[in-house]
Amino acid sequence: MSPLDLSVEELAKVLDLANDIEKNPEKYAHKCDGKILATLFYEPSTRTRLSFESAMMRLGGKVLGFSSANSSSAAKGESVADTVRTVSCYADICAMRHPKEGAPLVASMASEIPVINAGDGGHQHPTQTLTDLLTIRSLKGRLDNITIGLCGDLKFGRTVHSLIEALVRYEGVKFVLISPEELRIPDYIREDVLKASGHEFIEVERLEEAMPSLDLLYMTRVQRERFFNEEDYVRMKDFYILDKAKMALAREDMLVLHPLPRVNEISVEVDADPRAAYFKQVQYGVYVRMALILSLLGLGVDLC
Amino acid sequence: MSPLDLSVEELAKVLDLANDIEKNPEKYAHKCDGKILATLFYEPSTRTRLSFESAMMRLGGKVLGFSSANSSSAAKGESVADTVRTVSCYADICAMRHPKEGAPLVASMASEIPVINAGDGGHQHPTQTLTDLLTIRSLKGRLDNITIGLCGDLKFGRTVHSLIEALVRYEGVKFVLISPEELRIPDYIREDVLKASGHEFIEVERLEEAMPSLDLLYMTRVQRERFFNEEDYVRMKDFYILDKAKMALAREDMLVLHPLPRVNEISVEVDADPRAAYFKQVQYGVYVRMALILSLLGLGVDLC
Amino acid sequence: MSPLDLSVEELAKVLDLANDIEKNPEKYAHKCDGKILATLFYEPSTRTRLSFESAMMRLGGKVLGFSSANSSSAAKGESVADTVRTVSCYADICAMRHPKEGAPLVASMASEIPVINAGDGGHQHPTQTLTDLLTIRSLKGRLDNITIGLCGDLKFGRTVHSLIEALVRYEGVKFVLISPEELRIPDYIREDVLKASGHEFIEVERLEEAMPSLDLLYMTRVQRERFFNEEDYVRMKDFYILDKAKMALAREDMLVLHPLPRVNEISVEVDADPRAAYFKQVQYGVYVRMALILSLLGLGVDLC
Repeated sequence: MSPLDLSVEELAKVLDLANDIEKNPEKYAHKCDGKILATLFYEPSTRTRLSFESAMMRLGGKVLGFSSANSSSAAKGESVADTVRTVSCYADICAMRHPKEGAPLVASMASEIPVINAGDGGHQHPTQTLTDLLTIRSLKGRLDNITIGLCGDLKFGRTVHSLIEALVRYEGVKFVLISPEELRIPDYIREDVLKASGHEFIEVERLEEAMPSLDLLYMTRVQRERFFNEEDYVRMKDFYILDKAKMALAREDMLVLHPLPRVNEISVEVDADPRAAYFKQVQYGVYVRMALILSLLGLGVDLC
Repeated sequence: MSPLDLSVEELAKVLDLANDIEKNPEKYAHKCDGKILATLFYEPSTRTRLSFESAMMRLGGKVLGFSSANSSSAAKGESVADTVRTVSCYADICAMRHPKEGAPLVASMASEIPVINAGDGGHQHPTQTLTDLLTIRSLKGRLDNITIGLCGDLKFGRTVHSLIEALVRYEGVKFVLISPEELRIPDYIREDVLKASGHEFIEVERLEEAMPSLDLLYMTRVQRERFFNEEDYVRMKDFYILDKAKMALAREDMLVLHPLPRVNEISVEVDADPRAAYFKQVQYGVYVRMALILSLLGLGVDLC
Repeated sequence: MSPLDLSVEELAKVLDLANDIEKNPEKYAHKCDGKILATLFYEPSTRTRLSFESAMMRLGGKVLGFSSANSSSAAKGESVADTVRTVSCYADICAMRHPKEGAPLVASMASEIPVINAGDGGHQHPTQTLTDLLTIRSLKGRLDNITIGLCGDLKFGRTVHSLIEALVRYEGVKFVLISPEELRIPDYIREDVLKASGHEFIEVERLEEAMPSLDLLYMTRVQRERFFNEEDYVRMKDFYILDKAKMALAREDMLVLHPLPRVNEISVEVDADPRAAYFKQVQYGVYVRMALILSLLGLGVDLC
C-alpha cells in the first residue's frame, strides 16, 4: 500500500533481490510459471501497467486485466471489494490503480490474494518509490549520506512526497527543494516529515544555484491537470527546464532521475549525458516489481 | 450456443470434468500448452472475459482478443462471419460476446474453430448457466429434487430463464418465483417451459414468505438499463434485498447464489454467512469454462 | 519500415522461412520462449494487432501493449521516442501502428529493440505487403512472370502502392490497373515506379474486361474515410464488386487476394470458389510475421 509498509530491513532485502534478478535473470525466468497477475487499472497508466506486465512475464507468469474503468464491472455499480473478491478467483496476485485514494486498501482487505497499490489518486504510488530507491542504491551504492535535489512541482508531486518519506529513514540525507513559490512542498511534508526527522533541507527557487551541491537531481513533470487555469500552467511550466548548460554546473557523478513521462522539463540534449539515469530507472522499475511480486507470492523475501 | 446443446449425459460429464479439475488442477495445467483462445467481446463484460482468460491460462494456453466493439474491425463495416474466419487463423478456439442475439451462432457457422457463446443480447449466456449448475451440483450434491427460489428481475433476467430451462430436465425440481408484479417471469417461460414440463412452481411477491421452504435461493440484480424510466427503477430496486434478518428465516443448509455483479440486492452483511455461495460460484465459473474449453478442443469430454 | 528495406535476396529467405514455419510449426513453437513482443497501436487495427500477437504466441513468446492512443502515455504529452525507449525496458521487440507517417521510423532510431512498422498513416504497411508476396509465391509458385490486376481504390490504397513497388523488382510482371477515373493510381506511382522500371501496365475502367488475362486479382476496399463527401462514396463504392458472374470470366487458376476487411466489394458467394485466396492470405500473414519476428530477434534470417 505504501513504501513505508516495508521496514528498512525488509526494503533492503527486496532491493537485494531486485539486484540479484538484474544480474541473474535466467534464475528467475520460471519462478512464476503457472501464476497469473491481474492488472486492475481503473484509470489508464500505460507505463505502470506495462511495467507490471513485463515484470510478471519475465518471471514466467501470465497477465489478465483491464486498462480503464469503462471496460470494467464498475460501470455496472459493483464495489471495488466485490471486484477484487471476484478477481481472487481468476488470479494469484493483483496490481490496482484507482483514481480514489484508499481504494486499493479497501480492496486488499476484501481480497484473498495479495493486492499491490499501483497508484491511488494523489495519495501513494509505492512501486515508483521502490523504483527510485533501487535506482539510487544501485547507481550510487548507498541510500544514506546523499544530497538530493527535488525539482519542479513539489506541491502536487506524489512521487516527490513519497520519496522524501522514504529517504528520511536513512542517515545523512540532505534535501534541496527546488520549486517556484506557488509549487512549494506542502506544510505537512515540511513540518511532519522533514523537520520532525531532523534532516537538513533547504528551499531554493533557482535550479542553477542548487546544481553544484547535488549527488542526485530528481526532476518532475509539471502536470497540466494539476493547475487551476491554463495561464498559470503556461507561465510556470518552462521555469525549471534541465539542459546542457545547467548540467555543466553539476558534479561529474551527479545523477538525473525522473519518474517519466517527461514533457519538456528535461531537454532531449541531456539524454546522451552519462549522468542521465531516467531510462535506467525504467529498467530498475521492472526489477523491483519482479522482486515485489515474488515476495508477495511467498517466493522471495519474507514479508510480514 | 445454448446450455441445452449438451444432453443431460454430456452435461454430467462436463461437470464431472470440472470437478476433477477443481481437485487436481496440476493435472490440467499444461493441457492447452501452445493453444490460443481469442476473446471477441463486442460489448464489455470484464467479469466474463477475465473468467475465460483465467480458464485458458490455468490450462497453460494463451489469450488474445478485444474487449469492446470500437477497437475491432466491426467499426470498418466487417461482418461477424468475416471477423471469425480471420480469427480462425489466429487462434484455436474463441469466446464471443455480442449485443445482437444470434451473432455467435452466425459466427460459429463461418468459423473453422470452436466458438463459445459468451452472451448474446438478452438471449443466452450459456457458460453462466453451466456455472450455476456446477455450483449447485457441487455444493448440494445433486441437480434433482431441489426447491429453488428465483428472486428479483424475472422478466428480463436472461440467467434466470436459462437456469429454468436447464433445470426442468431434472426430476423433482420445484420453482419458487419471487418478483414484483411488474417483473414476473414471461409467459413463454411460464407456459412453454414450466407448465409444459409438468414441474411444480409457484409465484410469490414476498421474499420472506418463500425463504423457509428453499434449498437454494438464486438472487438477481435489478438492472437499471432494463427499465424504461428512472422512477420505476428507484421504486422497485430495493424491494428484494437479502439481509441477515431474511437469512434467519432460511434453512441451515440453504445456499445463496447470484450471477454477480451485485449492486445492493444482497447486503454485504450476508457475505460472512457460510450459506453465501456467490463467490464460490465465481470459482466454479472458471472450472466449468476450463472443462468446456478442453472438451471443445477435443481434450476433454467427447461432444457431438 | 518499408518492404523495400529487404533486398530481393533477403526477402526470398524470409519467405522461405515463413514456408518452413507453415510446414513445421512445432519446430518453431518454442523459439521465442521468454521473449516479449510489445504491440504499440496508437490507432486501433484489431486485425493487424491480433496477427502480430498470434505470431508471437505461436513462437512461444508473450505479448503486452496497448490498442489505442487514449490508453497510452501519449495523452500526457510524451514523445514517441520516449515511449519506445521506455518500452525497450519492457519488451524484446515491438510492432508500432501510428496515424502519423514516419512515427515508427522516429521510434526505431530511439529504440534499443527492433521496431516493426505495423502501418503509419497513408504511408506504409510493410507486413501486409510481405503477406501479399508470401501468398502469391506460395500459391502461384513464383513472383515473376505474372499478370496481376489491382482493382478498386488505387488512389489512396496504401497496400496497392506498396505491392506495386515490391513487384517491380521481379521480371515479367504485368500490371492491370482497374479503377474509376476518380480513383486512378497517383502520378508518382505511374511515372516513378511503373514507367521508370520499364514494366508493362495498362489502366482500365471495367473489371469484366480485365478478368480473362489475369493470373491474380488483388481487390481492395473503397474506404469510406478516404472520401470527401458521402455522395461520392455511395456513387462509387459498388462499382467494382466481384461476384460469381465476373469470376466466370476468369482463368481456372486465377487467384483472388484482398487485404481485408472487405465490406461488399467481394460478394460472399465468391468465398466458396477455390480461387478465393483471401482467407488463406490471413494465415500467411501470421507465418510471415513469425518469420520477421524471428529474424529481427536474430533467430531467423540474417538481416542487415
